[in-house]
Amino acid sequence: MESIRDRVAIIGMGCTKFGERWDADAMDLMVEAAYEAYQDAGVSPKDIQAAWVGTVGSFSTGQGLAEALKLDYIPITRCENACATATDAFRNACYAVAAGIYDIVLAMGVEKLKDSGASGLVTPRGPSSDVEPPTPPPAQFALAATRYAHHYGIPMDQLKRILAKIAVKNHHNGTLNPKAHFQREVTEEQVLNAPMIAWPLGLYDCCGVSDGAAAAIIVRADWAKNFRDDYVLVKGLGLAVGGKQGLLHDDYDFIHFPENIRAAQIAYQEAGVKNPRKEIDLAIVHDCFTITELILYEDLGFTERGRGPAEVEAGTFTLEGELPVNTDGGLKCFGHPIGASGIRMIYEVYKQLQGKAGPRQIKKTPRLGLTHNLGGRPGSFTGAVAIFGRRD
Amino acid sequence: MESIRDRVAIIGMGCTKFGERWDADAMDLMVEAAYEAYQDAGVSPKDIQAAWVGTVGSFSTGQGLAEALKLDYIPITRCENACATATDAFRNACYAVAAGIYDIVLAMGVEKLKDSGASGLVTPRGPSSDVEPPTPPPAQFALAATRYAHHYGIPMDQLKRILAKIAVKNHHNGTLNPKAHFQREVTEEQVLNAPMIAWPLGLYDCCGVSDGAAAAIIVRADWAKNFRDDYVLVKGLGLAVGGKQGLLHDDYDFIHFPENIRAAQIAYQEAGVKNPRKEIDLAIVHDCFTITELILYEDLGFTERGRGPAEVEAGTFTLEGELPVNTDGGLKCFGHPIGASGIRMIYEVYKQLQGKAGPRQIKKTPRLGLTHNLGGRPGSFTGAVAIFGRRD
Repeated sequence: MESIRDRVAIIGMGCTKFGERWDADAMDLMVEAAYEAYQDAGVSPKDIQAAWVGTVGSFSTGQGLAEALKLDYIPITRCENACATATDAFRNACYAVAAGIYDIVLAMGVEKLKDSGASGLVTPRGPSSDVEPPTPPPAQFALAATRYAHHYGIPMDQLKRILAKIAVKNHHNGTLNPKAHFQREVTEEQVLNAPMIAWPLGLYDCCGVSDGAAAAIIVRADWAKNFRDDYVLVKGLGLAVGGKQGLLHDDYDFIHFPENIRAAQIAYQEAGVKNPRKEIDLAIVHDCFTITELILYEDLGFTERGRGPAEVEAGTFTLEGELPVNTDGGLKCFGHPIGASGIRMIYEVYKQLQGKAGPRQIKKTPRLGLTHNLGGRPGSFTGAVAIFGRRD
Repeated sequence: MESIRDRVAIIGMGCTKFGERWDADAMDLMVEAAYEAYQDAGVSPKDIQAAWVGTVGSFSTGQGLAEALKLDYIPITRCENACATATDAFRNACYAVAAGIYDIVLAMGVEKLKDSGASGLVTPRGPSSDVEPPTPPPAQFALAATRYAHHYGIPMDQLKRILAKIAVKNHHNGTLNPKAHFQREVTEEQVLNAPMIAWPLGLYDCCGVSDGAAAAIIVRADWAKNFRDDYVLVKGLGLAVGGKQGLLHDDYDFIHFPENIRAAQIAYQEAGVKNPRKEIDLAIVHDCFTITELILYEDLGFTERGRGPAEVEAGTFTLEGELPVNTDGGLKCFGHPIGASGIRMIYEVYKQLQGKAGPRQIKKTPRLGLTHNLGGRPGSFTGAVAIFGRRD
């Protein structure tokens, strides 16, 4: 088994404004993202040799995508992997380039979510009649919050304040990002007094519902310098799907997610990262709920088990902190158009590594950035971790 | 751009009995196919490093698949590409192995179709409000039949007899296959007198509705000999998605499908095939309708344009013919559980190349076999062609 490290590079990216895009259907969003990426890379659609598109339910194959993107008679593959859908489309695109089958490809993700909400997306019926009906995500992650508080003996009021600080941080970052859905500060008091969604998670502990798309142009690493000097290298790609069926599986403890740990282990190994806290310069992670981001700090090795709350108090993960997390505003401000989020995250890492993140640019010159997704349901989550770096 | 040729090999395959599988849900079918493949390869689930699963609508990610297949914390990707779904899952698996990321992976496809029919599968709404509603497949391909007859000046009665011969051939092959849904001879008279579905296509011109799954274990080619002597090499993988939106697009002539031609061109180039008629020893093609198979003979270069009917009369594509097509019974006898068909086709080529196709074994010792899918809708079809070979 070989690593993906330094074998493929990103030479262009695009990302739509996320939000209530009543003005655009899924095709319009894809065109908007793809054309920004084409332009950023300085390529034309006819240069693209193959494409991967991630979407959970906004379209199926054969509905005119090739014509809209001006991709004529090339392979286009749809990937779906729950909340990691876009990242997995990106991953498969990278492997095909690393195999030498293609020199330059397009990977993108899209979801049109406002029309219907996540529950209105087509959800294939389960493969087995034995599968329990899905628990709504806020309820799944509420279990993590109550368990985290119990396990570490943290009074719930205290945990809620910690979670509120995560929401405040991400909302602040979102104010600096014109592509975010929500660009508004919130205060700890607002978060704590917000309507309850699934106790102890209130409205501002949950990410929004948005429309959006994002796109990346990927090439063989040795080609990248022909397109631009500040290309971004793929350093590691980890993905893991859990094999424990059922929400209440015995060995599922809800204070960590083994899929994250395994995905991170693969990505760190590929990237040669030994000490993530020191080596990762920024991370865009799957803050579907504030408790998810808290647990992620620990799952991804940014801090020790149980140390997440103290790090939040210390401001470690703020824009000015030691390891900025969700510098773009995260799912909190972008919402989570499911098939789009993974590549939207990569877009932020790409811009930060290029020093082009504008008012959100982190202070140190970043060398390595990380993206993360967690999707599906407890017991059979998909965890995905991707690591990107500047050319040396 | 490099070829996939001889870089990855199949060391084990499984295929369920296709048909009215009221006894099995999609998960059961996947387990049945995967375990036959594990056993055929002599591997255990814990040997598998990553998996790709093709399905159009029988499940989405995160529904216990990993547990059922005993794949714990490895990557599992869902692919969808209309009727080429399984082939594209297989293709992406091959690229990841060719890239050296994994040494041994599982690719499979499944669909549970009897519960609902194809129209009951979840069909994501189109990406664009401009997309015309889909024409039912029998009506799409009826247009090809009428156009073919008109273009070549063939009286419709004569064309219908030619099409009937294709149905008779595939039904005959199906009688020799215990895994087929339909294992019954039909006569030309039965075909010609069958109820009309979409003129001129009658009941026996259309493939059935079935449940099924199929699976393949793929390894680096240089590993294959550690598992078995009669492994099968992947020689070429071509896929193309059409960029013409709309059924009635000006330059869509309905006597050929450009997606097939482009996919075949890629696959032949990768495999080094210059004269398909002479070099391809058997083909399992997408006979969703008898007219599709007729046009495919020409699209795939098995005969010249307009020569398909004469070749059918000559018996070229029968089990005893010069270039046997759909030796396993085809979609006509297996039905078309959409996400499963591509790998079901590969299963037959794999068995034929190993000389293990029992009463269906073709007479000459085959060196190269081909599979083909055509899916989606006219103008933005997906065409897929894969070529396999015995070790030299």
